[in-house]
Amino acid sequence: MNTVEIIRKKRNGEVLSSEEIQYLIQGYAKGEIPDYQMSALAMAIYFRGMDSRETADLTMEMVQSGERVDLSRINGVKVDKHSTGGVGDTTTLVLAPLVAAAGVPVAKMSGRGLGHTGGTIDKLESFQGFSTSLSPESFVQQVNGIGLAVMGQTADLTPADKQLYALRDVTATVDSIPLISSSIMSKKIASGADAIVLDVKTGNGAFMKEEAQAIQLAQAMVAIGNRVGRQTVAVISDMEQPLGMAVGNALEIKEAIETLQGKGPRDLTELCLVLGAQMVVLAGKAESMDQAKETLQRAISDGSALDRFRQFVKAQGGDPRAVDHPELLPVAKYVQEVKAPDDGVITGLIAEEIGLCAMELGAGRKTKDAVIDHGVGVVLRKKIGDTVRQGEALANLYVNDLEKAKQVEKRFLQAVRISKESVDAPRLIRALVTENGVERI
Amino acid sequence: MNTVEIIRKKRNGEVLSSEEIQYLIQGYAKGEIPDYQMSALAMAIYFRGMDSRETADLTMEMVQSGERVDLSRINGVKVDKHSTGGVGDTTTLVLAPLVAAAGVPVAKMSGRGLGHTGGTIDKLESFQGFSTSLSPESFVQQVNGIGLAVMGQTADLTPADKQLYALRDVTATVDSIPLISSSIMSKKIASGADAIVLDVKTGNGAFMKEEAQAIQLAQAMVAIGNRVGRQTVAVISDMEQPLGMAVGNALEIKEAIETLQGKGPRDLTELCLVLGAQMVVLAGKAESMDQAKETLQRAISDGSALDRFRQFVKAQGGDPRAVDHPELLPVAKYVQEVKAPDDGVITGLIAEEIGLCAMELGAGRKTKDAVIDHGVGVVLRKKIGDTVRQGEALANLYVNDLEKAKQVEKRFLQAVRISKESVDAPRLIRALVTENGVERI
Repeated sequence: MNTVEIIRKKRNGEVLSSEEIQYLIQGYAKGEIPDYQMSALAMAIYFRGMDSRETADLTMEMVQSGERVDLSRINGVKVDKHSTGGVGDTTTLVLAPLVAAAGVPVAKMSGRGLGHTGGTIDKLESFQGFSTSLSPESFVQQVNGIGLAVMGQTADLTPADKQLYALRDVTATVDSIPLISSSIMSKKIASGADAIVLDVKTGNGAFMKEEAQAIQLAQAMVAIGNRVGRQTVAVISDMEQPLGMAVGNALEIKEAIETLQGKGPRDLTELCLVLGAQMVVLAGKAESMDQAKETLQRAISDGSALDRFRQFVKAQGGDPRAVDHPELLPVAKYVQEVKAPDDGVITGLIAEEIGLCAMELGAGRKTKDAVIDHGVGVVLRKKIGDTVRQGEALANLYVNDLEKAKQVEKRFLQAVRISKESVDAPRLIRALVTENGVERI
Repeated sequence: MNTVEIIRKKRNGEVLSSEEIQYLIQGYAKGEIPDYQMSALAMAIYFRGMDSRETADLTMEMVQSGERVDLSRINGVKVDKHSTGGVGDTTTLVLAPLVAAAGVPVAKMSGRGLGHTGGTIDKLESFQGFSTSLSPESFVQQVNGIGLAVMGQTADLTPADKQLYALRDVTATVDSIPLISSSIMSKKIASGADAIVLDVKTGNGAFMKEEAQAIQLAQAMVAIGNRVGRQTVAVISDMEQPLGMAVGNALEIKEAIETLQGKGPRDLTELCLVLGAQMVVLAGKAESMDQAKETLQRAISDGSALDRFRQFVKAQGGDPRAVDHPELLPVAKYVQEVKAPDDGVITGLIAEEIGLCAMELGAGRKTKDAVIDHGVGVVLRKKIGDTVRQGEALANLYVNDLEKAKQVEKRFLQAVRISKESVDAPRLIRALVTENGVERI
């Protein structure tokens, strides 16, 4: 096969064969196809797209380029959840114990945060002693024992995807739906998922700013999953404003605990129930969404979800007392209120900016090697659609450096829109994407 | 400036600034911008194009990346001619002495042939002793003395273009009009041309198979030239069949001599008069095309054009007696007739294939380092529109290897279409492209 001819074929809008995609990804991974051909191809894909067969082939070639996590010794259907990334997205922390309580095995690989988005491992490390460095053995044992475990990625999963992503990042070829969707799905499949629930965010705080784009991305991922034998559904959810109230590691842990106690913010609770119910149904633990939601609500009200969380923290070396006494979690020295400059209705809370405020306070990383501060962050007191009076608190900043707090307060106020005319809160759940199509909600 | 942002800008269909184009080409030439970014950009340009300002900027940045030939010590307006390449294209050999006789200084850089197209230097080396290795001094002196000189490219002209062309070749980004046009024009400008006449070929033997594409390319080049102060016009000419009758080095020299004697093939003569008249007008040596053509026809009939050719061959070390006694030129051992397999009218003579036949016989190079045989080639006996009887000669093959001749005969016959229904010969001159627009002829 000839790489130039394959690039030309895609450039001319033709469909690449499975053999051609295999040749490209294997050759690229081995260093036989140079970066300059791969970047030209990626740009041609940006313009010409790929059909669902090509995208599924690309995904599976990425999977086959590296190691795969073997979850076969875990009983039951392993359903993974993936979020395309947002601000204050505490769903994993709530969902994992919640669906585990409903009998769904949760064997999760997680990552750390970068920029304005947080990472599940960082949040969990708010528990003193908590470790995600599990051996594959103890990982499997823990899931079979208490129903859930979270580990950092150790295996060399999808190296071809990492290589291609790094190249796309410097050649303006990141935002291509076939390339994004195959990248995400290859990681989930290599992590051993039998079925996948996707939370595709839309809005200013999300990668996909427009709902139509988010739906397209969701459709591409759902098509891949179902083509390669992994039942996949996607929920399109709002990221115009942060999810829940807390943005910051220990602050989000507290919020997750409150949610597991049935006292969490309404939006976070709702999204966890919707995503969780999808997971329960895919795992075959309920016949219908309604039945699945009932099961989950019962796990909250009878305390079994929180109990799972306690067991999970303990199993991974964390101090389980902090689950019942969150005051044991790290907390910043100062709490500073950001006051409303005016009367009115909140019409905007720019999620990305608020994520960056938390990062500036030390909750997130500017660079990969930065050290984070688990106690700092932002807790919103108002959300879009809420009425506010001048001088009333818009948010609490949890800070260890009062000088920095001043700068962040300014930045926070620029992320808030207060208007005289009232608006409705943005709808949280926008659509459900399944193999059968898009259902707008 | 940020390379990724510039790639993204072009990818999104925006126009790049002069500063951005300078940053890109200078950075690429210095090795600061890697191939993988440049190839992604080239692919984005393939899809999004460039406007005439961007294309002119790109051209001048390529020019500035290397040395420039200084023709300022040559008196008069230096008009260069460029052909986009064809089969049996003997025009330069005829035009150079012809317009020199009309007072237009010809200071030409030429190259060697590759694949199915021939090169002017190869053809001239059919004269024993002929050399194109002139010092810049003697090159200028010769033009000021006898009006014409041809040298091989010695200076390091447009290195950024060479680097980019090699990259485009392996990333399926060659056929982009702004990239082709800036590449050609940068070489002409770096070679010191004050004004440029372009012969843009169209048809199966040309790079631009479709007339509409050829016109687009011509328009792009004419726009560049006129933007950067080099008056430029383009003639769109036919390359469905070879130009003239001869394809091969010494064979084309003989044909050029016959044309300078007024006995050449009609199509070659016509194209030389059209291109030559444009050159004469651009050089300010005639007021109108008609006047220019008259001057040129006189130079043929009074023998002054042929006399210039004789002086030129002598000045560059060739044996001038061969001009009047072409039997002194290298000639193949055998002449083998290709006979018509059928009665009918010639409706096709696939130029590229006939060029490859001559190459197979040894007239051209399969690879850059191949040695050529000056005496071999093809001389057509019939052209499109001619009637032929079964057994009548279609062409003579000039060969040194009878075994090879058999294979080439078969290949030649596959390049010929003979039909019962008559067709007209293809129009040779299709259009004239100037700053003012396209005039179809």
